[in-house]
Amino acid sequence: MTQTFNVAVVGATGAVGEAMLRTLAERRFPIRELYVLASERSAGEKVDFGARRLTVQDLATFDPAGVQIALFSAGGGVSKEYAPKFAAAGAVVIDNSSAFRYDGDVPLVVAEVNPAAARQRPRGIIANPNCSTMQMLVALAPIHREAGIERINVATYQSVSGTGKRALEELGRQTAAMLSFQEAKPEVYPVQIAFNVIPHGGDFLENGYTTEEMKLVWETRKILGDESIQVNATVVRVPVFYGHSEAVHIETREKITAERARELLAAAPGVEVVDGRVPGGYPTPVTHASGRDPVFVGRIREDISHPRGLALWVVADNIRKGAALNAVQLAELVIGE
Amino acid sequence: MTQTFNVAVVGATGAVGEAMLRTLAERRFPIRELYVLASERSAGEKVDFGARRLTVQDLATFDPAGVQIALFSAGGGVSKEYAPKFAAAGAVVIDNSSAFRYDGDVPLVVAEVNPAAARQRPRGIIANPNCSTMQMLVALAPIHREAGIERINVATYQSVSGTGKRALEELGRQTAAMLSFQEAKPEVYPVQIAFNVIPHGGDFLENGYTTEEMKLVWETRKILGDESIQVNATVVRVPVFYGHSEAVHIETREKITAERARELLAAAPGVEVVDGRVPGGYPTPVTHASGRDPVFVGRIREDISHPRGLALWVVADNIRKGAALNAVQLAELVIGE
Repeated sequence: MTQTFNVAVVGATGAVGEAMLRTLAERRFPIRELYVLASERSAGEKVDFGARRLTVQDLATFDPAGVQIALFSAGGGVSKEYAPKFAAAGAVVIDNSSAFRYDGDVPLVVAEVNPAAARQRPRGIIANPNCSTMQMLVALAPIHREAGIERINVATYQSVSGTGKRALEELGRQTAAMLSFQEAKPEVYPVQIAFNVIPHGGDFLENGYTTEEMKLVWETRKILGDESIQVNATVVRVPVFYGHSEAVHIETREKITAERARELLAAAPGVEVVDGRVPGGYPTPVTHASGRDPVFVGRIREDISHPRGLALWVVADNIRKGAALNAVQLAELVIGE
Repeated sequence: MTQTFNVAVVGATGAVGEAMLRTLAERRFPIRELYVLASERSAGEKVDFGARRLTVQDLATFDPAGVQIALFSAGGGVSKEYAPKFAAAGAVVIDNSSAFRYDGDVPLVVAEVNPAAARQRPRGIIANPNCSTMQMLVALAPIHREAGIERINVATYQSVSGTGKRALEELGRQTAAMLSFQEAKPEVYPVQIAFNVIPHGGDFLENGYTTEEMKLVWETRKILGDESIQVNATVVRVPVFYGHSEAVHIETREKITAERARELLAAAPGVEVVDGRVPGGYPTPVTHASGRDPVFVGRIREDISHPRGLALWVVADNIRKGAALNAVQLAELVIGE
């Protein structure tokens, strides 16, 4: 008989929470009891889990005793307060917020990249990386192992779903307003996102970078276990609903050819190479990534500006591989121990 | 009495041609006769020039004798055939296509960057650079002069107007279709552009780069007069109507601080610095560039991944500074000689 587990999803009514439920159902995660939790405001709402409808419970009054796996995606504040309580009650917490990502005693894990790190979790918490870092490292880890990545120049094209449900609504609403020649008022983003691009994610820091840009630096080093890797990022929000894209320009210690990189990526777990050098022969959010699991890599070419440079184009569904899928993969690692 | 000139605009019914007419009118270019020309198909149509309506004439049957300045923006094929004829008839041709950009005896000129080069035009032709290169070099030239640029990593966010009027219509049509849950058929681009990003411009070359990417390499070297500058570009089309954006990461021979770069750019012709490190404190196509002349530069920061690196975000109206405005500025240089 298969062992089954008591699982809680915290933030079950959010974009990532809903995707976590879908992913648990699709991958037939061995569930005994499933608790769907959110703030008091959402308590009593219904959410789908496969063919079933589950009632959302209030996180604040929920007793975590007996929960074995808790998937958190309700923001950093909620994680800071409740993740330690769930861990103290015996659950392994897999946290999608940035609350614990940079703590030395919380592993930060991409399932295909550093799965062994998930075993060392003294606080009972495993952190799920930022979506942009996640997909970049699924693509770069095989190259790093072979040739050693020294430096990364990355410019992102991030979809609004990364900001949450209100941002999805804002893009839809602003676009409709624009098409009927009405004003497209910004609410979620500081300026109009419809038919625009915004070079800003998170907060601005002293060094001129934003927190979303620095996450690509900090998380890359922690996940690859190499503090010497240099990262220069420009994070940009684009008017796309689902799927983040990245123009990734890397420099390696050893020269690696485009052909060899393509071979490594074709064999890498979680990666799908889409690299025909013809119109449409590359991945895009709409044609490849949206609603799908793999990290898609195309436009693989040797950088003509650097003797050990390589350029790639990396696209993935930021809600799936970038968040929900990796969280469930980490839960699978935990129950497989 | 001010001297006046006979001017022809070839490709007058296109997106750039229309902008050339607007720019000539706005800048009160000293015109005696103005000829608006296009293919036989468009002959007889009317176009606006200030308060006047002009009738489009058929380029194929037009006699260029007496034309002193000819602004061409009707594609490479038309330029190859007709620009030499206009030049032979005595006109100075300012050509917006890529037909002559890489010819050794045709200067490639950005008005603010290398105006003196416009004087040496043995064939009577001056080439107008590609829009992406144009705005990038308006921003980079002051930094290059001070610190010497060795290498450029650039990822672009190019609006559909760069492709022409049919692409503007395609984005509008596909967006409306998507919002009413209909199919968004691609015609101009190989895949859907609405709510998507496409890492492709021009044709694919042997080295894996596209022609639009290689233009950033070739034209940067020719305009800055330095064949040693290394450029690595990823060109991406985004669902924006007007205004190209660029994430530009450069490496210089001498270290330059963000503060010094900001000073140089604030004093540079054609540049407007928008660099508050707060939400909305950066340029975007919609909030700053669309319909305006300057090249806007923000997100200026020292690259944390390189001792002599600098990162910038550059936005401009690709139809104005990227094409029509620079062409008219070149015409002003010519008549001012």
